[in-house]
Amino acid sequence: MSELTANNYQKGDHFPARADPNILRVYYNQPCPFSERVRLVLTAKGIEHEKIAIKLRSKPEWFQSVNPSGKIPVIEFGADNRRLTESLVIADYLEAAFPDTRRLQPDDPYERANDRVFIEILLAAIFKIPFIYTVENLSENWSQIAATLKPVDILVAERRGNNKFLSGAGNVPNLVDYAVWPFIKAVPQIADIAGYDSDDYLRQELPAIHDYMGCMSSDPTVLQTEVIEDNECCVRRRHGFAKK
Amino acid sequence: MSELTANNYQKGDHFPARADPNILRVYYNQPCPFSERVRLVLTAKGIEHEKIAIKLRSKPEWFQSVNPSGKIPVIEFGADNRRLTESLVIADYLEAAFPDTRRLQPDDPYERANDRVFIEILLAAIFKIPFIYTVENLSENWSQIAATLKPVDILVAERRGNNKFLSGAGNVPNLVDYAVWPFIKAVPQIADIAGYDSDDYLRQELPAIHDYMGCMSSDPTVLQTEVIEDNECCVRRRHGFAKK
Repeated sequence: MSELTANNYQKGDHFPARADPNILRVYYNQPCPFSERVRLVLTAKGIEHEKIAIKLRSKPEWFQSVNPSGKIPVIEFGADNRRLTESLVIADYLEAAFPDTRRLQPDDPYERANDRVFIEILLAAIFKIPFIYTVENLSENWSQIAATLKPVDILVAERRGNNKFLSGAGNVPNLVDYAVWPFIKAVPQIADIAGYDSDDYLRQELPAIHDYMGCMSSDPTVLQTEVIEDNECCVRRRHGFAKK
Repeated sequence: MSELTANNYQKGDHFPARADPNILRVYYNQPCPFSERVRLVLTAKGIEHEKIAIKLRSKPEWFQSVNPSGKIPVIEFGADNRRLTESLVIADYLEAAFPDTRRLQPDDPYERANDRVFIEILLAAIFKIPFIYTVENLSENWSQIAATLKPVDILVAERRGNNKFLSGAGNVPNLVDYAVWPFIKAVPQIADIAGYDSDDYLRQELPAIHDYMGCMSSDPTVLQTEVIEDNECCVRRRHGFAKK
């Protein structure tokens, strides 16, 4: 892994030229769940990559030319520095462009499409949680947050059935899992900040998410991609309600 | 085509049983641009299908079981009535499940991903037009709408280059074109409602869209899918600002 990995590029920093055109580069931000999706996919598929962390509140000037929309993640690859954005588009690209790596999507077109629809449905349910994006004091609004989390737990329960993962394939996570995990893993962090013992709380109130978290937390790809970070800092940055 | 096509199903209407499990069914709504995407893809690929129009403001009770989210379009197929939602997911499914029909996406993974990113970028630019969704009198706000349309024209110009279509392939539209056309074709309708001669206006102010509209309007798939409808009615319904 490149030395550049340690960097968190910000305003004024020079553009780090790609040293090796054969190594794919990912521009990302640590607490960004969409970036985490792509990092999980790259790790799961065993695709060697160089990581360039971008400080979102003080982006380096050159990032404008990497992605005019300013959004992360971006992957960059090939001798001609081809670039792609949009985490699920990138996931599809990596699946098609690296056919000899671990498959993360079903071969059956209907199953593959069904996975994609489930990702959208689960994300829509998670994005119904309004308060974590606007309110500092989660505990005051917890009853309403809890009511919004319940349908998420039901979706997870229904989809998993007797499987360990959401993939439907039983004992191995696939793209569905890596696409929703960066959002799901925030649930206990939110509960902790709100003043609950998240393990107790999830076990009682959100049993499917609790059980699923246990399975995902011991997945080698998740373990390898995870960066130890202070819970509160991570959640606050993730949901944009840190004090500026 | 089934006799049911003529229907516009609403509250109180019986559920129309599928007569033939070999014929794919699409639940749609006439002015819904996401539905139109799917109808264009089905037509372009020559996939026989049965059309069930749904009245969105008074949905039939049984539609809840077709799609619990209430959204259209939905496709339904197979003897076991499999269903899929999300217009671009459906497009991917049809491309993979009907390999012997006309290809609408590039085989090259990078080109395919690039197409998908372009669809997102163009749609994001179009969705920056705020007024058509909230204001009845378009002419009063036209200068601001016009300022928002200009970047859309630039995106279309850059992507087309010297090609007729956005596909990049020259003389045949592909998924990119059918995915954005239902939104692009509203531009002259909006200009007409705002009191301009849309043909003159586009020629002068939005030359890339004007030229592109000429090419798309004579595409056999567009001609076959188009339903003649009053301009104002269509735009008003499309953007949800009809008097209720």
